[in-house]
Parts: sequence; C-alpha cells; structure tokens
Amino acid sequence: MESHRKKLFLDDLEAGQVYHLGRQTLSEEEIITFATRYDPQPFHIDPDAASQSIYGGVIASGWQTACMFTRLFVDGLLNRSAAMGSPGLDELRWLKPVRPGETLTASVEVLDVRDSRSKPDRGLVKLRCIVADSSDDEVMTFVANVLFQKNETG
Amino acid sequence: MESHRKKLFLDDLEAGQVYHLGRQTLSEEEIITFATRYDPQPFHIDPDAASQSIYGGVIASGWQTACMFTRLFVDGLLNRSAAMGSPGLDELRWLKPVRPGETLTASVEVLDVRDSRSKPDRGLVKLRCIVADSSDDEVMTFVANVLFQKNETG
Repeated sequence: MESHRKKLFLDDLEAGQVYHLGRQTLSEEEIITFATRYDPQPFHIDPDAASQSIYGGVIASGWQTACMFTRLFVDGLLNRSAAMGSPGLDELRWLKPVRPGETLTASVEVLDVRDSRSKPDRGLVKLRCIVADSSDDEVMTFVANVLFQKNETG
Repeated sequence: MESHRKKLFLDDLEAGQVYHLGRQTLSEEEIITFATRYDPQPFHIDPDAASQSIYGGVIASGWQTACMFTRLFVDGLLNRSAAMGSPGLDELRWLKPVRPGETLTASVEVLDVRDSRSKPDRGLVKLRCIVADSSDDEVMTFVANVLFQKNETG
C-alpha cells in the first residue's frame, strides 16, 4: 500500500474508470516451471512436443497468465483498496497463445458498481480484466466480480 | 499417460460422463507461499490480518484452488486424452472459502460435445468442473471449454 495514495473504497469506483496495472514478461523457464507444477500438458512443458503441436512451440498455461495478471492487479489496485475478495468471474477467454519473452500489459476497466442487497457495509464491482501483448492484441480477458467495503467515514 | 488406458479422443466423450480426479489438501504454508507469489492480499498471506477479516483466518487464493484442480484434471484426464488446449471458461464461482488442511476433491462432468465448425479434425467439449470439500459442499465450480482431437483412425 502506498501511503501517499488515497485508499479506494466502493464509493470511489465508477463505471468507465480504467486502471493500468503495469507489465510483465514470462521466460520459457518460468512457463515450464509453472506448468510442471500446475498444468503439465505437453505444449506447456516439453519444447519438442510443443513444436509438434498446433501451437508450434511452448506456450504459457492460461492459468499462469491469470495468476500473473492477479499479481499486477493486487499490487496496482486491490492492496490499496478496501477489497474483500471475489465470489467469481465470467467469460474468461484465452484469445491468443502467450509465448516466452512476450511483454504483457494488464489493465482493468470498471463496468458496474452496485450495493450489496444483504450487507449494507459493502458492494460488488464488475471489472473487465485485460492482458494484452506488445502488438496490443488481447491475449486474455475476463469479467471479475470483486467485493469492496464502503467508506464508513464518508 | 497410463499405457493400459485407452487414449481419449473427442469421439469418446459424451454428455453425462463424470470423471473423478482425486483429492488434495493445501497446508497453511502452501496457501501463504502461493498467494505471496500470485495473490498477496492480506487474508491470503497474513494470519493476523486474516483473523480480523470477514474470513476469520487465512483462506486460499481462488486461483490456487483453480491451479490445484487443473493439476488433478491434467493428471487424471487431459494427459491421457487428445486435448489441444482451452479457449476459455465461464461462470467461475468461488462458493466457499478454502481453509488450510481441508481435503478437496475434484471432478468433471461432460456437459456438451460438438464438432468444430472450422476445423474438421477437432471439436469443443464443455465440462462442468467441480472442487468440493469434506462436507461435500462445492467450494469452486466453473464451465470449461476444451478442444479435443477426433480419432482419425476411427
């Protein structure tokens, strides 16, 4: 949390806001290490098998792209906010294979902000989450639902 | 890949089939290690802050539940199949917090199998993916879309 920045509550978020969350690159070693642990399909962990696959080479597990995005999202927004966790997400699309060395940028756009029906201290925010490559092509998108606390001090 | 098992192609999958993929437990150390790397929100990485949160203690990152599921899915089904990757998923729900030591079981149910409209050698399978706890409560569900190759040898 950066002390010179105001902490973000539900009240501070509104549809149309865009937050840029920075960039990251995955090396072939990082791709293989992650997938060996969590998603050991041949086209993620075996360069020879991957070169024979429809992808023509090693590509990152889509879950690694999601985890990389999440780290940027937490560092760039959630940990300077009153976020309270997520009940889920919708329409996750892996649109383009992520190859070693590609520079990926992350951003979120606020789609909708609404009060909780059952808990008066919080609300639910829909965010369009985007990872794009150096050609500005989207490689992964999804719509996240995140709970945020309201600012009780007004 | 287990040699005594038949390799699964698109042709072998049909709506209604259920595959049980085994079980796993996440320790508090594993939860904190994963979240420190990918999802460092206080209720995932800091036992004191977590005990003051709405969760009352450390809970696993939902992405860790998804990654743990994926490993069981790959080991138990995808790596003995002609799976070709995934274009995405829908309706991911984190329904119940995952706490350290909880035994989680993974399963998938085939919802739909259809031929590709553009590529005659493959098709798209929709699978309901489920992680449940020891009380048989679902803790995470989503609908995955996975490409499978057809069996060219008939």
